[in-house]
Amino acid sequence: MIVAPPNFRLSGSRFQVVYRVQASATDIEARVRSMALEQTVEFPEDLLPSGPFREQMPGHVESLSPLEGDWYRAVLSYPDEAAGHDILQFLNVVFGNTSLQPGVRVEDFTVPQGVATGPRLGVPGVRAALGVPGRPLASTALKPLGLPVGELALQAYQTALGGLDVIKDDHGLADQTLAPFQQRVERCAEAVAAANRETGLRSVYAPNITSDPATVLSRARFAQDAGAGAVLVSPGLAGWGVLSALASDPGFRLPIIAHPAFTGSFVSAGPGGMDHGLFYGTLPRALGADITIFPNYGGRFSFSRDECLAIARRSTEPRGSLAPSFPSPGGGMTLDRIPELKAAYGNDFVALVGGGLHREARTLVEASRLFVAALAKPVPEPSPQVVE
Amino acid sequence: MIVAPPNFRLSGSRFQVVYRVQASATDIEARVRSMALEQTVEFPEDLLPSGPFREQMPGHVESLSPLEGDWYRAVLSYPDEAAGHDILQFLNVVFGNTSLQPGVRVEDFTVPQGVATGPRLGVPGVRAALGVPGRPLASTALKPLGLPVGELALQAYQTALGGLDVIKDDHGLADQTLAPFQQRVERCAEAVAAANRETGLRSVYAPNITSDPATVLSRARFAQDAGAGAVLVSPGLAGWGVLSALASDPGFRLPIIAHPAFTGSFVSAGPGGMDHGLFYGTLPRALGADITIFPNYGGRFSFSRDECLAIARRSTEPRGSLAPSFPSPGGGMTLDRIPELKAAYGNDFVALVGGGLHREARTLVEASRLFVAALAKPVPEPSPQVVE
Repeated sequence: MIVAPPNFRLSGSRFQVVYRVQASATDIEARVRSMALEQTVEFPEDLLPSGPFREQMPGHVESLSPLEGDWYRAVLSYPDEAAGHDILQFLNVVFGNTSLQPGVRVEDFTVPQGVATGPRLGVPGVRAALGVPGRPLASTALKPLGLPVGELALQAYQTALGGLDVIKDDHGLADQTLAPFQQRVERCAEAVAAANRETGLRSVYAPNITSDPATVLSRARFAQDAGAGAVLVSPGLAGWGVLSALASDPGFRLPIIAHPAFTGSFVSAGPGGMDHGLFYGTLPRALGADITIFPNYGGRFSFSRDECLAIARRSTEPRGSLAPSFPSPGGGMTLDRIPELKAAYGNDFVALVGGGLHREARTLVEASRLFVAALAKPVPEPSPQVVE
Repeated sequence: MIVAPPNFRLSGSRFQVVYRVQASATDIEARVRSMALEQTVEFPEDLLPSGPFREQMPGHVESLSPLEGDWYRAVLSYPDEAAGHDILQFLNVVFGNTSLQPGVRVEDFTVPQGVATGPRLGVPGVRAALGVPGRPLASTALKPLGLPVGELALQAYQTALGGLDVIKDDHGLADQTLAPFQQRVERCAEAVAAANRETGLRSVYAPNITSDPATVLSRARFAQDAGAGAVLVSPGLAGWGVLSALASDPGFRLPIIAHPAFTGSFVSAGPGGMDHGLFYGTLPRALGADITIFPNYGGRFSFSRDECLAIARRSTEPRGSLAPSFPSPGGGMTLDRIPELKAAYGNDFVALVGGGLHREARTLVEASRLFVAALAKPVPEPSPQVVE
């Protein structure tokens, strides 16, 4: 009943997605074939028009190889035209409906031409903007939620005076009457600017712009106009298109920091879901995050050291024309762990110490100085044997 | 080091979240206490100012009771001020950072005043708009991806002529050059209007508006202006704020259909994640979805019958001032299952038959007529003994 469009022909460019798929040996071929249809035409194969349409429009199973137990590694390719230069539709093809099926985990993907340009600044651009060429960057969060703007701005001033590079809102600061967005952004940006005049440094304040589509881009512009030096957004709440919309906006120039709020299920949906390194490294990087926050091992969260190192590797490894982005491990971190973090992550990461920073010295200024000094201190070359 | 704001005092209104939490008997109290802090102040408790701030700002553990094994049911309450009339910040308090921790599943929540108004139309409003007072609604999807606009519009015409109520884009139709958004919306809306003139019915076309925050709201308005009768959006891609932004937009009046693409990990992240009924029923309903699509049991997906019935119950059960929304089970459905679906879901659901509809008769018009007739046919009162 479906009529093939006359002269149907696609470009031939296809992007690839690597899945882990669970099925019996007898079922696996039908299983991955059904995924190839599900993620594109979502239509019974025998009802598709024969010829070029049926050959080119669905996914192709490029390779299939057994892993442990009843798991297989399947590489599927999809026509670039299915994504249509739209990052959300790209994600939909990668894992839209298959996210609703059991036993499918996304391990890797290539991104079609024109869908995502990656970080505008990336590691080199952020380093240049902040004037920090070598060491890991130091970051903290303004909190607790409930403090008025004046107290948050005071923290911003103190931590900037102590030399922290990136001073971000706690991701729970939205537009509550406790500390309204516009007032908070203006005061905290001013506070950091005042500290910078004293220190000669280029510390930045990064307000949380997470909000609905009617508001999020205007908050980003307000932040830029008010003198903020970066923005923080939780794409799992605000939508994955926020990152690429900001990264490709010619009128926007600030570094973008992605926060993982509300996304944990994507990686913990084991044996399904998405690979840690892909989800917190490759994905936000491809979409345009300059810095991607994730819960570090050994803190209040549950990611393993290997999962965290995979996130860092995926954030910085060579990948087509994408600039590297900064991995930013945080969550229950303390200054005494910095040598270990440097040994694990090298120099290209943003160390995030939040509430715990308040314990590290008598004043927040002093604690911030200790933090930066610890990051600046050379550590012995990382040696896998001694790091654990 | 943190100074309490002078005269700090909250309203006393708090919203509740019900969690399942995994911990040993000796750890559970500390575990839920740490969640109460994590989701609000995200700060060491002993560093908070004592007095009203420390008493009121963090979560409270309202109740804690043992479940099977090492699982507990914990009811936490959070101050309404923490959510600050922002649906995304509400979700962040519910499951922002705890989504990144193991052994936490969200089972239910209450929504603070002013955060979400629910469906604008809901079941009664959609029924009135479509002129279908009693039976379940009939819905299909225009596909496969790859067809040109003319072929999709022809399907829209044929299915509307056959009397289907809701004719939606397949959720993979975005703005691909294969069938560009604006041209598709205009042509498909015209096609459904032409059919309506013949049938005297009020079938609606629902284009997929899923896109980034710079585009999604303008696509919704374009759809409305072009004569579309509803819109389809995937909030897991476009962001959860899209639903509430559209539902509260005084200039927007169309029914909103939520699609579950890219969200499966939220419910399959067992034993963590979120409850099926809460995630696909309560949540989209609270945010403003008039119709919420989910994968039906016994199709191409893996949800159980109980999980699906819980979604339907949560979509329609009395809940404060929220209008009921239509649950819309779909995915691999066929017409021979309609008596069973009616017995399971009653009359207030939207039956979604997609690609399979093309198999049900020689023409799509005739298949659509059979679909509506099957839904209109009375079935015996549901009896749990015979339904399975």
